[in-house]
Amino acid sequence: MGGPAARGRFITLEGGEGVGKSTQARALAEALRARGHDVIETREPGGSPGAEAIRKLLLEGADDRWSARSEALLFAAARADHVERTIRPALERGAWVVCDRFLDSSLAYQGGAGGIGPNAIRRLHAIGSDGLLPDRTLLLTLPEVETMERLARRDAAGADRIGGKDAAFHRAVADAFARIAEAEPQRVRRVDALGTPGEVTRRLLAAIADLDR
Amino acid sequence: MGGPAARGRFITLEGGEGVGKSTQARALAEALRARGHDVIETREPGGSPGAEAIRKLLLEGADDRWSARSEALLFAAARADHVERTIRPALERGAWVVCDRFLDSSLAYQGGAGGIGPNAIRRLHAIGSDGLLPDRTLLLTLPEVETMERLARRDAAGADRIGGKDAAFHRAVADAFARIAEAEPQRVRRVDALGTPGEVTRRLLAAIADLDR
Repeated sequence: MGGPAARGRFITLEGGEGVGKSTQARALAEALRARGHDVIETREPGGSPGAEAIRKLLLEGADDRWSARSEALLFAAARADHVERTIRPALERGAWVVCDRFLDSSLAYQGGAGGIGPNAIRRLHAIGSDGLLPDRTLLLTLPEVETMERLARRDAAGADRIGGKDAAFHRAVADAFARIAEAEPQRVRRVDALGTPGEVTRRLLAAIADLDR
Repeated sequence: MGGPAARGRFITLEGGEGVGKSTQARALAEALRARGHDVIETREPGGSPGAEAIRKLLLEGADDRWSARSEALLFAAARADHVERTIRPALERGAWVVCDRFLDSSLAYQGGAGGIGPNAIRRLHAIGSDGLLPDRTLLLTLPEVETMERLARRDAAGADRIGGKDAAFHRAVADAFARIAEAEPQRVRRVDALGTPGEVTRRLLAAIADLDR
């Protein structure tokens, strides 16, 4: 009965390929629901009808279908739609939003390893989405040898345009994520992704415990 | 024989709906070819395979499918692909490029009438395309009453997402184009679009005569 609903919380999961983000996003959303929260699970690129249409353009086609600049602009366009049509409305009604990849993936992939630079990525996010940042970003990390083993198993089953790149590319992405975590320690928390799924989920919950009150 | 080819010329045609840009772009390209130039005709959104795919997203679907921000980012992504894969290679081999709509349409539609502001549009163009500007922009103009008559005839045949907007929208676009022409008189030349197609083409050729030497 009371006044307007308190704003919800915006949680993103980040990390390289094969680190378990999608599985953990689902598990985290379930755990938050079990605590009584209204939770939406979403992912990037995508998460709204327009953004899903842009996702198809980004993930299909030849490896060199898009230049780094076009790719960064397409990701920013998809994110603007996702923020405006899915994320902000959910936060405003008081829901928690658990999102598999967000701005930091653009910083690490297009802004770091991809080559257009993090400042350009941040300017695009300012124009597209008023620079919306997560309340907490959970960066899942694995030792490089474990990452490469997981990707080898995944590649055997067929990889998409981004998953199919080489070890040097994945190392550059991991380094870019590490720099973001160092620069923004309050927002971004590193979480060890080794162990059973249940162990990892408990670590994630511990890393957002201060937001849940 | 001789050194590298001289850089070609980049000519854009701009103006509101129904002003005859597509017809005149074709006629202007033909006239330049008759003078011995290598000429490519292209148009926005589109003009390269990636940009044509983005064009479909922009022109299909409901009127409110995209927010002004997402739309501006999609136009900038399409333009980045078009510039990198079609326009710059043509200019570098010495060809003339005649393009139906370019940056000024984004400034007038998304940056003016659409609402995100010209500065944001210019920042997107700097990130996506290094701020490439035409050597000459030919702004085709008509009295408002003539524009509305042409659009009424076109609407009867079915309009797309942008052509179907109302008189106030088209007036805001015309005002935005007029401001661009005032601000950049060396690049942008206003050309009267009343008269026979041949008369208008002769005016266009006169307005680029200083470039053809």
